[in-house]
Amino acid sequence: MTEPAVVESDFFEVIGTQRAMRRLKPDPVPEEYIKKIIWAATRAPSGGNRQGWRWLVITDPESKEKIQQWYHEGWSKMTASGYGAGTNLPEAERLSNERVMKSATYLAEHMHEVPVLILACSLTGNGDITSGSSIYPAVQNLMLAARALGLGTALTTVHRGWQKEIRELFGIPESVETAALIPLGWPKGKFGSGFRKPVEDVTYWEKWGAKKA
Amino acid sequence: MTEPAVVESDFFEVIGTQRAMRRLKPDPVPEEYIKKIIWAATRAPSGGNRQGWRWLVITDPESKEKIQQWYHEGWSKMTASGYGAGTNLPEAERLSNERVMKSATYLAEHMHEVPVLILACSLTGNGDITSGSSIYPAVQNLMLAARALGLGTALTTVHRGWQKEIRELFGIPESVETAALIPLGWPKGKFGSGFRKPVEDVTYWEKWGAKKA
Repeated sequence: MTEPAVVESDFFEVIGTQRAMRRLKPDPVPEEYIKKIIWAATRAPSGGNRQGWRWLVITDPESKEKIQQWYHEGWSKMTASGYGAGTNLPEAERLSNERVMKSATYLAEHMHEVPVLILACSLTGNGDITSGSSIYPAVQNLMLAARALGLGTALTTVHRGWQKEIRELFGIPESVETAALIPLGWPKGKFGSGFRKPVEDVTYWEKWGAKKA
Repeated sequence: MTEPAVVESDFFEVIGTQRAMRRLKPDPVPEEYIKKIIWAATRAPSGGNRQGWRWLVITDPESKEKIQQWYHEGWSKMTASGYGAGTNLPEAERLSNERVMKSATYLAEHMHEVPVLILACSLTGNGDITSGSSIYPAVQNLMLAARALGLGTALTTVHRGWQKEIRELFGIPESVETAALIPLGWPKGKFGSGFRKPVEDVTYWEKWGAKKA
């Protein structure tokens, strides 16, 4: 066991350059790297510190192929029904959207070639948006830690259309929600800053809609 | 405007020591610090990169007092109905739970004295757990960035029992979900590692329940 190599240790640099990496090399990811990013995940808060998360690590080729088939079918249906068409977007956002859609389609076609898929599973939940408050902070920690180690990830949820089949394939109890499917691998591209709206556009002060002068 | 001072810049140190800080000083938080942590929040991923988040920054004493009253009433009801009683927990978890409950009650009693409250608002959502996947990663980025700057936060959701009243008070549209209420301030205590289960207890390999030998 060798300690994973940190390729970017500066906190704000990691935060600022962690973007979805959907083009990943098939090269394997050493176990210590997987454990390190799951350790980071478990440092996140959860309601009442219940830590109702489980991380299912999938490297088996047959399992990955099944997931890829479901994922690809789900993604194809979404795009066919107009998801991500990006009509009416301003120019800068339209170009960013095009790049995202292209790489997301690449991922859907190559999901089985990704060395590791991680299912973020939640044991707790009450059915409303706050169910996510005890799992997605941990997912974000995991993805940030991956970036610090030079590993690419993306937060995907398309698999949920086949949650029943996925539960059967892996023996996941019905009470457990598969909150995210995270492909993990060494990226083909470079980390960098994604397109984001400026802070002043998304921050209100004291009242809804009130921006700073 | 002065650039916020980073007190901890090492990524894994920030990840490893960001715990909920519920005892906060009333001292004000400079605007640049607030903007810096919201910038960090906006670096997080969101479904289709839609960035359907808004950050409502609340410092007005009257607004904070109303929130404190609602929050305290909600928290009192939760504990009265047995939330966090922690009976049947193993010793180490029981002690950790006791500390969490004590500091959470402190927060409920002193919420109006916290210098800044941030409402994390979500414009997107479909009603299931994945609604949270486009807001809680950003909330986690915000809390990590606060820790890097020496600021304490906690992810709370108790306010949701009064979401209707909160929408009215701040003019928040009905379609918007208030996903989290985050108190922000300079902590009285020290950052450190919270109680967490070991990685091997929450990681499964290839099949649900399968641990590494």
